[in-house]
Amino acid sequence: MPALDDFCSIIPAGGVGSRLWPLSRADAPKFLHDLTGSGKTLLRATFDRLQPLAGPGRTIVVTGRAHRAAVEAQIPELDDASIVLEAEPRDSTVAIALAAAILRRREPDVIVGSFAADHVIDDERSFRRAVAEGVAAARSGRIATIGITPTEPAIGFGYIRTNGPAEIEGAPSAAIVREFVEKPSAERARRYVESGEYLWNAGMFIARADVLLEELAREEPELAAHIDELAEVWDEPAKRGPAVDRLWPQLKKIAIDYSVAEPAAERGTMVVVPGHFDWDDVGDFSAVAKLHNGGRRGRLAILGTAGTVLADSASGIVVSQSNRIVSVVGIKDVVVVDTPDALLVTTTANAQRVKKVVDAVRLSGNTDVL
Amino acid sequence: MPALDDFCSIIPAGGVGSRLWPLSRADAPKFLHDLTGSGKTLLRATFDRLQPLAGPGRTIVVTGRAHRAAVEAQIPELDDASIVLEAEPRDSTVAIALAAAILRRREPDVIVGSFAADHVIDDERSFRRAVAEGVAAARSGRIATIGITPTEPAIGFGYIRTNGPAEIEGAPSAAIVREFVEKPSAERARRYVESGEYLWNAGMFIARADVLLEELAREEPELAAHIDELAEVWDEPAKRGPAVDRLWPQLKKIAIDYSVAEPAAERGTMVVVPGHFDWDDVGDFSAVAKLHNGGRRGRLAILGTAGTVLADSASGIVVSQSNRIVSVVGIKDVVVVDTPDALLVTTTANAQRVKKVVDAVRLSGNTDVL
Repeated sequence: MPALDDFCSIIPAGGVGSRLWPLSRADAPKFLHDLTGSGKTLLRATFDRLQPLAGPGRTIVVTGRAHRAAVEAQIPELDDASIVLEAEPRDSTVAIALAAAILRRREPDVIVGSFAADHVIDDERSFRRAVAEGVAAARSGRIATIGITPTEPAIGFGYIRTNGPAEIEGAPSAAIVREFVEKPSAERARRYVESGEYLWNAGMFIARADVLLEELAREEPELAAHIDELAEVWDEPAKRGPAVDRLWPQLKKIAIDYSVAEPAAERGTMVVVPGHFDWDDVGDFSAVAKLHNGGRRGRLAILGTAGTVLADSASGIVVSQSNRIVSVVGIKDVVVVDTPDALLVTTTANAQRVKKVVDAVRLSGNTDVL
Repeated sequence: MPALDDFCSIIPAGGVGSRLWPLSRADAPKFLHDLTGSGKTLLRATFDRLQPLAGPGRTIVVTGRAHRAAVEAQIPELDDASIVLEAEPRDSTVAIALAAAILRRREPDVIVGSFAADHVIDDERSFRRAVAEGVAAARSGRIATIGITPTEPAIGFGYIRTNGPAEIEGAPSAAIVREFVEKPSAERARRYVESGEYLWNAGMFIARADVLLEELAREEPELAAHIDELAEVWDEPAKRGPAVDRLWPQLKKIAIDYSVAEPAAERGTMVVVPGHFDWDDVGDFSAVAKLHNGGRRGRLAILGTAGTVLADSASGIVVSQSNRIVSVVGIKDVVVVDTPDALLVTTTANAQRVKKVVDAVRLSGNTDVL
């Protein structure tokens, strides 16, 4: 499959991933880790996955100033025009819409696709097929997302409810999005999956840049205007700095789900292409363990080789980042994350609660380990 | 109660306590730790417990050369005559019988009592009463031990089976020892405790030094002769060194249980004084947790204050010896031992299996952390 001529990809690389603390933290966020054991960071794997679609020089990474060096080390291919540095985190609308606005100034008819820097996808061929359909749908003026065909009634993801085929040329499997729904209860998740009407929301958005920005302007006119002002001067170094200093503090923090996707779904212009590939947002250590143990219980995954890990009758995952001996004896589904300055011990069943400990660490004043 | 004029105490301070790894290790053995949170190491607490019985200057500590400085730091009261340094560990018979032989040379009618350096005793008054009875029994020519009245069918201790009252003046509660039995199965332990005939073997031995050494000479004549040769020159610095160099390598490694206690029991000269006090040999982290949590489950004990320990829905024990953040989320009866070069994660139910990990560490070649 050749690259799509009118397509640019956007990789918002933000978010600490606090449920993956103490591995993931402010100065080493989730996207800079190799959580799959592939030898690549999640960011690099995301970039590589998009290259065949967007072609060389047509991917923009949006990240915080603090991560510039790390991002460039991961992706030496990026030139200055391909990195958008955020003065302060301003949530996903700013990250994606600003990149879209910059790209539209450079190339008015561009179609943009936004893909998180820290998700894992297994079947790249299926992924590319789904994106190609999404791009076809975007060409028709819709905003497209890719929804993952659920393999289990997961409660850790949001869902997309479909509403019959969208009948778009070049996007035969695209369906109309009826609504986006938040992470459900277990019972509700079961019903969603049984109904066959729901897909997992993987947070992938594909649209013509102008369509995306119009949708945003309809819902958040002030934010859209600020973003347009920034984009107007972005490629002029002398003007960019003052504009950022003036406008950035005013930028509203809002997820793109609320500023664009849900309003578009309400107006019937949002479509979803089902993705039949393995996808995970690797939101917690339970997900990391699952990735490593191939879904098989009773195994102990070892991530990192800094120290020596010794186990007796243990399963789950050990992340070894300090050069110590880590020994685990007789615990099922354990999660041990051993870093030089912080240690986490929990179980996969409690992986979502790690965020509470991060809050406790913050309260304890030990913010240097966050 | 005044000190007992004819009594000297012996504290064998050896044994790494490998079920307490990585807290307890070759260069920081169990007896040098404060496992109770009392502010005293187990060794110091043992010494203090014996002072009212033996009186000042009448306690000998037997330890390895490597621990001399640490032992002297714990017990500045010890003079050179009160420390017996072992060239190499040679098990409990050598430790106790050599000290007894040295003391007999200095004071022919001395009664010696041997008490491990790393046990915990709660009711000191009851302990002293029991020792006083043991000393009275020893004066009559018996070898006495103190057996602990069981509070539960423990499987981690050996048991002493009694055989009716010994009828010794000054030792009204002393009973004849019928036999010593090894650590039992749970079912057997239950029957022992129900029968009322059994006491826990706390490894405390009290005897006239000459009686103890005669018993040893009967069972292990060569070892007894070597020990006597060493004792003969022990207080002559010029002769001690050459004698140690020549004889130490030949000293047989054998526990005093087999060389003295069991043979004496078979001949009917062993008696036991029941001790009605809380006693624990603190053999594993389950015991440490129990000491700290007062037997109450559902609590998380924290031993050491090196780092910051944060917990959410966790119980068990955290030992914090590195200056890291230790966070424990949602694990019951967990054991986390965090030291600068080694980490152990297990549960109290698996505490006895820690020894297996120590073996694995040895096999892995990381002997510097043992």
